[in-house]
Amino acid sequence: MHEFELIKNYFQKLSKKSPSALNLNDDVFFDKKNRLVVSVDTYTEGNHFVDFKKPDLVIKKIIRSSISDLVCKGVKPKYYFISGSGNKKSFSKLNLSKISKSLNQEQKKYKIFLSGGDTVYSDKLSFTITSIGFAKKIVYRNKAKVNDDIYVSGNIGDSYLGLLVLKKKIKLEKSFNKYFINQYFMPNIQLKLTSHITKFANTAVDISDGLLADLSKMINIQKLSYKIYLKDIPISSNLKKILTLKKLSKIKYISNGDDYQVLFTASKSKRGIIKKISLFCRIKLTKIGSIQTSNKKSLIVDHKNHEISLKNIGYLHQF
Amino acid sequence: MHEFELIKNYFQKLSKKSPSALNLNDDVFFDKKNRLVVSVDTYTEGNHFVDFKKPDLVIKKIIRSSISDLVCKGVKPKYYFISGSGNKKSFSKLNLSKISKSLNQEQKKYKIFLSGGDTVYSDKLSFTITSIGFAKKIVYRNKAKVNDDIYVSGNIGDSYLGLLVLKKKIKLEKSFNKYFINQYFMPNIQLKLTSHITKFANTAVDISDGLLADLSKMINIQKLSYKIYLKDIPISSNLKKILTLKKLSKIKYISNGDDYQVLFTASKSKRGIIKKISLFCRIKLTKIGSIQTSNKKSLIVDHKNHEISLKNIGYLHQF
Repeated sequence: MHEFELIKNYFQKLSKKSPSALNLNDDVFFDKKNRLVVSVDTYTEGNHFVDFKKPDLVIKKIIRSSISDLVCKGVKPKYYFISGSGNKKSFSKLNLSKISKSLNQEQKKYKIFLSGGDTVYSDKLSFTITSIGFAKKIVYRNKAKVNDDIYVSGNIGDSYLGLLVLKKKIKLEKSFNKYFINQYFMPNIQLKLTSHITKFANTAVDISDGLLADLSKMINIQKLSYKIYLKDIPISSNLKKILTLKKLSKIKYISNGDDYQVLFTASKSKRGIIKKISLFCRIKLTKIGSIQTSNKKSLIVDHKNHEISLKNIGYLHQF
Repeated sequence: MHEFELIKNYFQKLSKKSPSALNLNDDVFFDKKNRLVVSVDTYTEGNHFVDFKKPDLVIKKIIRSSISDLVCKGVKPKYYFISGSGNKKSFSKLNLSKISKSLNQEQKKYKIFLSGGDTVYSDKLSFTITSIGFAKKIVYRNKAKVNDDIYVSGNIGDSYLGLLVLKKKIKLEKSFNKYFINQYFMPNIQLKLTSHITKFANTAVDISDGLLADLSKMINIQKLSYKIYLKDIPISSNLKKILTLKKLSKIKYISNGDDYQVLFTASKSKRGIIKKISLFCRIKLTKIGSIQTSNKKSLIVDHKNHEISLKNIGYLHQF
């Protein structure tokens, strides 16, 4: 069973009486009256992170992944709660020092505060992060309009290549290794975008499962489709080099997630303001496609405007 | 390392800049300006619950344990988030139906709403519950005063006997079995107390680790001690019967936790109002001892006023 089905079949009805739960069909909970925005995510070893050999980096990754859910909605994260399950080895004094130091660095970088949590003994390592922010309004899912432009922030794909390096499925030069591994563990969260995104975006999500999977998720209860231009999807100059050097296909690298960039749609009339804010805030915002009516098929096309066939568009947790 | 040491050595400093974190030394997080109260707890199989043979009951237990943290502070829980890690067997369709039905019953009983969460694949079953409520003020830890009376709500000890029955460490008649197992899984949370406790309590916690362990926790940074009268600790008539029948010692049963009753202190001048509210709301509130200066020793005494020696006062998570 997909995670979506699981939510739909067993849990959605439990949230019916609370409009703030957004039908469990958005990235966050939003209680408008109390201006409260909450996101809860669980990260397990071997699933959301390869292993715990670099606790300092794993902690950075999961904190950024958690606050990313708020950031893509236009919400500055303020508080976080961390609940860790692990054994003596995972939570050795050395590892605890590294975790603590890493959290301190993230707190300074993103102006967030450790506010509570829990620690329990378990042979299986996992963390649950609750992130909280306050906002008068947020950018919801499923609010795209026909003919909206589709944008993405930053670059896509570095993180997946980093994961392949970590898993030893690809071999690169040392300097490249370091670059991509860092991009995997320390995605560049677009905190500055939170002050502006509500001015132009109709709908938004962050990219965790994969650009195309998250795009589908963003409009999953709307009768709409999308068209994406592969050539327009922004990638780093380093990734460009590797793709050329190793003769790898771009499509694979931009559809595997862990990017934590913001994916949003905006009316064509907003192109001017988006350009201005992008320049002013030095945030790369790239138009990669558009929203279409539902009688067209959702698709991604190559430089010849031919549809690219996709067997697997991103990652869904299955039970 | 005890959980307390772990927090003190590695995490407390990270919360220093956020007064709402209450120095990570209380049961909840309280942002006074936003009236926001949050509690985060993780529950693992084999640790916080024996196994998952009765998913409906396990879910009730962990939901009640989580909201209990808010209730003891005088805060009505409003929203909860549930993050579950488990495998296909734990999250089978049958189990998911049971979980969903149980959550629905708890929602109605306690007027709480499912507001989000996460589900991830893991061989080790665990749940993290985030509970949220709103309040202008709360009853803090570490605010006891010398000569305060110490009170406890409801009855203590049923839950531990239920756990022994579940673990097959004690054999009882069928009807008793059912009673104690139900008390273990479905502790009687004192929701009604939330409207009144701020009127009389100086300090409060809920009993999860054990009456004496939690009492120590309640005043852990105060230079104070306590004196408790074993004979005054309230137990159910069923537990009384079993203790007599099996010639068991009361002290063992009242100091092992999972009771989720409210432990609080109040000035002697509040005895009248406490009696009135207890009668009016039909909540059993029992005076079991008093707070003393720190030059006296913390102790629990028997009916002859002799100190009872304690080897192990409750449960601390160790790494």
